[in-house]
Amino acid sequence: MASSDQENSGTSSYSSSDGLFKALAEKMLGKVVEFSRKLKKLGQDDPRRIIHSLKVGLAITLVSLFYYFKPLYDGFGVNAIWAVLTVVVVFEFSVGATLGRGLNRMLATLLAGGLGLGTHRLATLSGETGEPILIAVFVFVIAAIVTFLRFLPQMKVRYDYGLMMFILTFCLVSVSGYRDDEVIKTAFRRLTTITTGSITTVIVCTFICPVWIGVELHKVVAGNLEKLGNFLEGFAGEYFQLSEAEDSRDKSFLEGYKSVLTSKGNEENMANLARWEPRHGQFRFNHPWKQYLKVSNLARQCAYKIEALHGYLQPETQTPQEDRSKIQEPCKIISSECGKALKELASTMKKMRRSSALAEPHIAKSKVAIENLKTMLKSGQIWKDSDILEITPAAAVASLLMEVVSCTENIAEAVRELESLAHFKSPKPRVTPEDPPQVMDDNQQGAIIGAPDDHVITVNDGPSDQYLMRNPSSVAEGSRIHL
Amino acid sequence: MASSDQENSGTSSYSSSDGLFKALAEKMLGKVVEFSRKLKKLGQDDPRRIIHSLKVGLAITLVSLFYYFKPLYDGFGVNAIWAVLTVVVVFEFSVGATLGRGLNRMLATLLAGGLGLGTHRLATLSGETGEPILIAVFVFVIAAIVTFLRFLPQMKVRYDYGLMMFILTFCLVSVSGYRDDEVIKTAFRRLTTITTGSITTVIVCTFICPVWIGVELHKVVAGNLEKLGNFLEGFAGEYFQLSEAEDSRDKSFLEGYKSVLTSKGNEENMANLARWEPRHGQFRFNHPWKQYLKVSNLARQCAYKIEALHGYLQPETQTPQEDRSKIQEPCKIISSECGKALKELASTMKKMRRSSALAEPHIAKSKVAIENLKTMLKSGQIWKDSDILEITPAAAVASLLMEVVSCTENIAEAVRELESLAHFKSPKPRVTPEDPPQVMDDNQQGAIIGAPDDHVITVNDGPSDQYLMRNPSSVAEGSRIHL
Repeated sequence: MASSDQENSGTSSYSSSDGLFKALAEKMLGKVVEFSRKLKKLGQDDPRRIIHSLKVGLAITLVSLFYYFKPLYDGFGVNAIWAVLTVVVVFEFSVGATLGRGLNRMLATLLAGGLGLGTHRLATLSGETGEPILIAVFVFVIAAIVTFLRFLPQMKVRYDYGLMMFILTFCLVSVSGYRDDEVIKTAFRRLTTITTGSITTVIVCTFICPVWIGVELHKVVAGNLEKLGNFLEGFAGEYFQLSEAEDSRDKSFLEGYKSVLTSKGNEENMANLARWEPRHGQFRFNHPWKQYLKVSNLARQCAYKIEALHGYLQPETQTPQEDRSKIQEPCKIISSECGKALKELASTMKKMRRSSALAEPHIAKSKVAIENLKTMLKSGQIWKDSDILEITPAAAVASLLMEVVSCTENIAEAVRELESLAHFKSPKPRVTPEDPPQVMDDNQQGAIIGAPDDHVITVNDGPSDQYLMRNPSSVAEGSRIHL
Repeated sequence: MASSDQENSGTSSYSSSDGLFKALAEKMLGKVVEFSRKLKKLGQDDPRRIIHSLKVGLAITLVSLFYYFKPLYDGFGVNAIWAVLTVVVVFEFSVGATLGRGLNRMLATLLAGGLGLGTHRLATLSGETGEPILIAVFVFVIAAIVTFLRFLPQMKVRYDYGLMMFILTFCLVSVSGYRDDEVIKTAFRRLTTITTGSITTVIVCTFICPVWIGVELHKVVAGNLEKLGNFLEGFAGEYFQLSEAEDSRDKSFLEGYKSVLTSKGNEENMANLARWEPRHGQFRFNHPWKQYLKVSNLARQCAYKIEALHGYLQPETQTPQEDRSKIQEPCKIISSECGKALKELASTMKKMRRSSALAEPHIAKSKVAIENLKTMLKSGQIWKDSDILEITPAAAVASLLMEVVSCTENIAEAVRELESLAHFKSPKPRVTPEDPPQVMDDNQQGAIIGAPDDHVITVNDGPSDQYLMRNPSSVAEGSRIHL
């Protein structure tokens, strides 16, 4: 409310406070802008987050209708708040987590409600003085026992939420029963409202743009193999400094594997949640989620070797270029062929086709390269006059690469098991006119190794086509069956 | 109810059904016995689990009193169930987790209650038709926005539960208000009952045998260092097969480090919860939990090297004993001195004393051993006539051990930072009569390295004494300051 006069007379003090205000406003504005940029990035990184938020809003608004419409309200009464509460606590990002919570909540409410009713009856029999004491004792004992059960690992993994809800419902029914004597009615209403809330949540979560945690796990595990493959494909080039324009290239492929090192807990959690999910797409109800964990654990073993290899890219722990280049040829083959094999296995998983055999020729090639490397080292021709101290890092790299091959073999074996356990589809080969039709089965996989490269059948049906479109590079290298 | 006659006449059929029944009963009994054995083990492994269960029972019984006693019940009414509910969902194993949940719940209820009241007033102004529509819109918008905010990493880590409670309370207040028009009363009651529940929970959790998550993190990180130390101390003996009675020894020390590889997520979670805890013992409110994560990450780097070393214990990837034994001496020193250094650092953390300098002489010794090893390798005297292929694994082991030394140095540096950030106490040396009193400070640490071993001051005050009692082996090696 400063008048024009005041403004002119007190310019200096005004402008200083004005400046302070301006600075504050700018700082605030800066924070707001930064915050909204973060939010925007969050939505852009995974637009499903926005959809999820809208779905939660929708489900809550839907159950709030129980309050809005009088007939429904009269039926459920004040207990309708349990429906709202159920939606808020049960609605999770993925279908598996939501189903797990919903089923846990409904089952626990049913069982604990029954037990609470029984306890209440029993307590009533013991007269007015005994009743509160008996109920207090029951509440204490049941709460303590069930809390202790929550520590059991097999309970914690799948039924932790249910056990918590069990204590809750048991206390509410047995304690509130003491007051209003409408125990059965209360228990029944609670059960119906919770069921309504759970079912609404599950329906909204499952039928509007569902996020299947099983699919996520599938992608993560396949992605892990791909990350390892990327590193190995690029490793030799980095280690032997084969590329010229060093600094300009994107080196992110050298760091991707790091997330594999620490993903164990997250994947186990996903596998546990995935077990709640019903059949969806190619994923059955009893999909072999444990086998995914097996593949992932083997990938982690490989990632530990890769972490050690990564250490040898540091300039301070390097054998002179000259000595290194002597083992360059076989090491390059081992590294890049293992990389290709892992990427084939990743693509097998992504496409859900029985194509793990495509990794075999790569593994075979790297095994041949190992033999070459061994012969070179055995002959004593290389590094004959070299300083043993200097060749030690290169020897370590060679040794690690040999181990990476056996890791890759183990992974290939595990993916092959997964193929049959998860009933991946057989690849439907499109036969070129001059070749007779051939159907590949598991028994023939052995014969594929070492077969000449000129008989090529291109896998070219729906889903894999789609995959190839998104990964044009794999068309060139990966998506052919060498017969 | 079979009579004696029937029993005799139908022996065969009776005995077969009797056998079936017996088998079933035995099976059931076996399962029950196994289950109770599991439960017993669960309690024996960590007796605090039993105490926690009893504490939960106690807290729930306490808040149930609101129902039992009429005056209290009249005050809180049916809303008293919110107190029970709060105890069940807020009570966690550790103080940090409980405080985090309790504060989140109270704060969220307060804020959302206020916003819900405001929304309700605003909606009432828009007339009878507009009211439910406006409330539905508000509920949808707020639920969607807050759900989206839960995806923000910095929110997810500390305020996830609060945001969920915010949606819940907002919906309950604004929606239920539409019905019973006692909005303010409802909101106030909900706030008081939730506060009562939270406070009861926090008091029981904190004052009866509290489990501090900060102390747990502290122990886990120190334990990680100790596990690495155990492996390294024993590694040389295993690799060079120095001990005779191979099979009879306990090899568990070779596997302990594996848990370090995958503990990242768990430790980060603990650090986040520890931030909620007030001052307790030597742990201040702003204890440097992040530094613990730094120490632990460096330990993990070291564990990756150890994982690679572990691979070389397999018989199939070994250099012949004869060639291996040539580098035995320096490798043994490096491995065992690094092991000792790591165990000193672990003990520094456990005792919370500024004694990380005790690790310095060990690191210095292993550095000397590295130089010896390098000289040996450089001289070309060893492995001169050996097959390079055969010596490759041994060279890799030597290379990895050298890297382990630099990992150990990094860990020592991080522990030294932790010492000063966390204000560990200075060791109060008990001076032997012939020595002048000396107080060690950070600047003197450098001078300790390489000092003669005969000036020994035994650290011998309260807490460390206690520690020494429980770890008698460290008295011999670790708890002296070499000046």
